Amino acid sequence: MSVYEKVSSLGIALLSPPKSVGAFVPFVRNGNLLFLSGHIAKKDGQPWKGRLGADMTLAEGKAAARAAAIDVLGSLQSAAGDLNEISRIVKLLVLVNSSSTFTEHHLVANGASELLVEVFGERGAHARSAFGVAQIPFGSCVEVELVAEVASSAVR
Amino acid sequence: MSVYEKVSSLGIALLSPPKSVGAFVPFVRNGNLLFLSGHIAKKDGQPWKGRLGADMTLAEGKAAARAAAIDVLGSLQSAAGDLNEISRIVKLLVLVNSSSTFTEHHLVANGASELLVEVFGERGAHARSAFGVAQIPFGSCVEVELVAEVASSAVR
Amino acid sequence: MSVYEKVSSLGIALLSPPKSVGAFVPFVRNGNLLFLSGHIAKKDGQPWKGRLGADMTLAEGKAAARAAAIDVLGSLQSAAGDLNEISRIVKLLVLVNSSSTFTEHHLVANGASELLVEVFGERGAHARSAFGVAQIPFGSCVEVELVAEVASSAVR
Repeated sequence: MSVYEKVSSLGIALLSPPKSVGAFVPFVRNGNLLFLSGHIAKKDGQPWKGRLGADMTLAEGKAAARAAAIDVLGSLQSAAGDLNEISRIVKLLVLVNSSSTFTEHHLVANGASELLVEVFGERGAHARSAFGVAQIPFGSCVEVELVAEVASSAVR
Repeated sequence: MSVYEKVSSLGIALLSPPKSVGAFVPFVRNGNLLFLSGHIAKKDGQPWKGRLGADMTLAEGKAAARAAAIDVLGSLQSAAGDLNEISRIVKLLVLVNSSSTFTEHHLVANGASELLVEVFGERGAHARSAFGVAQIPFGSCVEVELVAEVASSAVR
Repeated sequence: MSVYEKVSSLGIALLSPPKSVGAFVPFVRNGNLLFLSGHIAKKDGQPWKGRLGADMTLAEGKAAARAAAIDVLGSLQSAAGDLNEISRIVKLLVLVNSSSTFTEHHLVANGASELLVEVFGERGAHARSAFGVAQIPFGSCVEVELVAEVASSAVR
C-alpha cells in the first residue's frame, strides 16, 4: 500500500501547515533534512488544552499526540511536495504538558510514533525523546517537533 | 543593507561567546551545519532571572529572548568567522521559564525570532519550537538553542 | 590510549541499547550524523528516580547524568559498530527533573559531558543545552539525547 493509500485508509485528511503564530516558518530544509517546527495538538482546529496527570487521561493524551502527528504529516507533504519523497522519519521530540507526578510521557508519545510507523512503515521508525514540560503554547497538552529525511532526488 | 549594517543599525554590539560553564563548547560544526549550545538570557552580563507567569511581564520575557538571540549572533560570528557566511537560520529551540498557567511562550520566543529576521532577512526565517520549562540554569528566564547553515564556501 | 582502553580504564561495561519502550528505535543515521533517542538515567538497570531540588543531591544528579551517558556509549557502539568510528560528539540535550527552585542543571549535565570528554578526548567536546523539566518517563531524574558524527568511512 502506498503512503497515500495508508493515509486514506486511516481516514486522515492532510492539511496544509497552519499560518505560523510568530516570526517563524513551518519547516526549513537543509540538504536532505527537513526540520519541522513544533506542532501543538489541536482538536476541531483549536488548541487541545489539558495537562496529563491533572485533567486528561492517558488515552486522551495519546490521541492528542496522534492528532499532532497528523498535522505533522500535512506539513511534511507541504515541505516535500509528495509524502512518497519522505525517505525516513529521523527524530521526534514529544513534549507533554504534565503534572509533577505523571511519568508516562513515553506512552503519550506513542500516539505520534505509532501513527508515523502506520503511515511510513519501516521508513517511519525514528529516534525519539519525550518528557514532561511546565506548559505549552496556548495551553495545548502535547507538542511534536520532527526531523525527517527527504529522498535526495526530491525537487525542492 | 548588509548583515553588519543591520546589526549596527540595531545598536547591537557583538560579543564573543562566554566561556562555557561546564564541560562543553559554544558550538560544533558538522558539514554546513552549526549546532549552537543553549544560550541563557542575560542582562548587564548577568543571568536574566525570572519566571513568566510569576514575576515577569510578557514584554520583559520577549526582551530577554531578544537579548539571548543577540548573544547567539556573537556565537554565530565566532563560529562562522563572518555573519555574511550564515546562509540560513535553520531551527530555534526556545525554552521559557514559566509557571504552570503561562501559555504565551510563542510570544516570548518572537523576541528571538524577530531579531534574527531583522538581521538576516529571508535567510533568518527558521523552524522553531517553544515551550515552558520547570527551570533554567542560573534561574534565567529564557534559553535559546540554534541550528544554522553556513555557506558551503565558508572556511572552517 | 584508545577509546576502548579509556572505557575499560573507567570501569565501564558497554551495554546494547535497551529494547525501546514505545514505537521508536534507539538511533537513526542520516549521512554521517547519528541521532540518538533520549536515554533516561538508570541505576542497577532500573529508572533512577528522583528530582533535583527535592529529593536528590547535586552529586547524585551528576552521577545519574554520567550513568545515562554510559548507556549512550553503548548505543553509540551499537549504532556505529565501533566507538573509534565516532569522529565527534556534536550535541547533547540534557533534561533534568527539577523543582522550580533548582538552578544548577548545568552542573548536573556536566556528569554526562565530562564522561564523553574523558572517553573521546577532543572529539568529545560538544554543544549542549541543559534545563529543568516537569517530569521524565518512569520518574527518572535525568534524560540525555545526543547527536554524534560518524567518520565517513564507517560502514553502516
